[in-house]
Amino acid sequence: MCNSVVQSNTSDAMRTNLVSAPVYVVLLHHPIRNRNGLEVTTAVTNMDIHDIARTARTYGVKRYFIVTPIQDQHELVGRILAHWRTDRAKVEHPDRVEALSGVELAGTFSEVKERIHSETGEWPEVVLTDARQMPNQVSYTEFRRDWQEAVAKGRTRPLVIVYGTGWGVAESFFSEVHRILDPIYGPGKEAGYNHLSVRAAAAVILDRLFGL
Amino acid sequence: MCNSVVQSNTSDAMRTNLVSAPVYVVLLHHPIRNRNGLEVTTAVTNMDIHDIARTARTYGVKRYFIVTPIQDQHELVGRILAHWRTDRAKVEHPDRVEALSGVELAGTFSEVKERIHSETGEWPEVVLTDARQMPNQVSYTEFRRDWQEAVAKGRTRPLVIVYGTGWGVAESFFSEVHRILDPIYGPGKEAGYNHLSVRAAAAVILDRLFGL
Repeated sequence: MCNSVVQSNTSDAMRTNLVSAPVYVVLLHHPIRNRNGLEVTTAVTNMDIHDIARTARTYGVKRYFIVTPIQDQHELVGRILAHWRTDRAKVEHPDRVEALSGVELAGTFSEVKERIHSETGEWPEVVLTDARQMPNQVSYTEFRRDWQEAVAKGRTRPLVIVYGTGWGVAESFFSEVHRILDPIYGPGKEAGYNHLSVRAAAAVILDRLFGL
Repeated sequence: MCNSVVQSNTSDAMRTNLVSAPVYVVLLHHPIRNRNGLEVTTAVTNMDIHDIARTARTYGVKRYFIVTPIQDQHELVGRILAHWRTDRAKVEHPDRVEALSGVELAGTFSEVKERIHSETGEWPEVVLTDARQMPNQVSYTEFRRDWQEAVAKGRTRPLVIVYGTGWGVAESFFSEVHRILDPIYGPGKEAGYNHLSVRAAAAVILDRLFGL
């Protein structure tokens, strides 16, 4: 019964999406701006791994790439991911194991693009999310409509949605980007506040683009 | 310029919302179901305090109540909140200080209702969020439309949105509830997956109800 209710809510375009044009998400830890606008590498946090993995799985994302050039962080994240492949974890937290099975580490964004290219045969479209207002940002309504139309017409080109950490993605990354999504606003914006955590922003953005 | 763009996106109903009918959110740690369906009290986590405080502030929520009957947890959360009232925190993380200034502790949900009543003169409408499908749930589209219409007509009655922890709010709480919102679905639902963290769900739900 669950299934039939959901299927009746699901447009053909959204259903096609899952098979034809895969969606990937990237959490970028370099190049990032710090609070003074300098380019830095941020640390991977355990909560970012878990929360965004669960969100990505909920919204049908094919894989969630955590990008950091720091080798120590690869070892740390590798150990965390290894824990979530143990038999005990599979019994005690199957949902968590399922979500974390979609998480992959990469040293650079180029590596992410190459992996996507080698598995799909196409270079992905790269969409950046950012809390700042910038010229030529695309609205969620427009992006969602474009996406559904393209998928209905048989789009196969993969999409990569990039989330920044720290104070946002550094400008040196912008040459990688095809489109930038609008900042997320709620009524608090009138009081000058839009400081969602990246975990909350990742969820809101995927919901606006792909929520049923 | 930021301001004028945002104001032009903001309907009158949403603007009235901020002054007339206040919205509160509650993160409930008791009564909660554990994985076996038994009624338990969950532990407060630091990340739930921060992320939901920032989300609440972004979406114009008046106050974020953390409800737990455990006195040790009150001391712990009290110490965390006290840190975010220090002068050093105000200088280094003003946005975080602003978000956390809206966080309050309560021992029971009755206490929350009484505080809202004593500051607004009205008993709140209580809306539960839940990841399970249940009879008579209300859709986000319907709730958002009802809310905007009511606020445009001068609604002053406060709204409390309740999020559960653990495996969801226990049935003994349901007598407090006026309406239950639909579960959140994305394309992953077709593969049987909708396990958002409470931090992600809180953000998606506030965005669906009050996002601009």
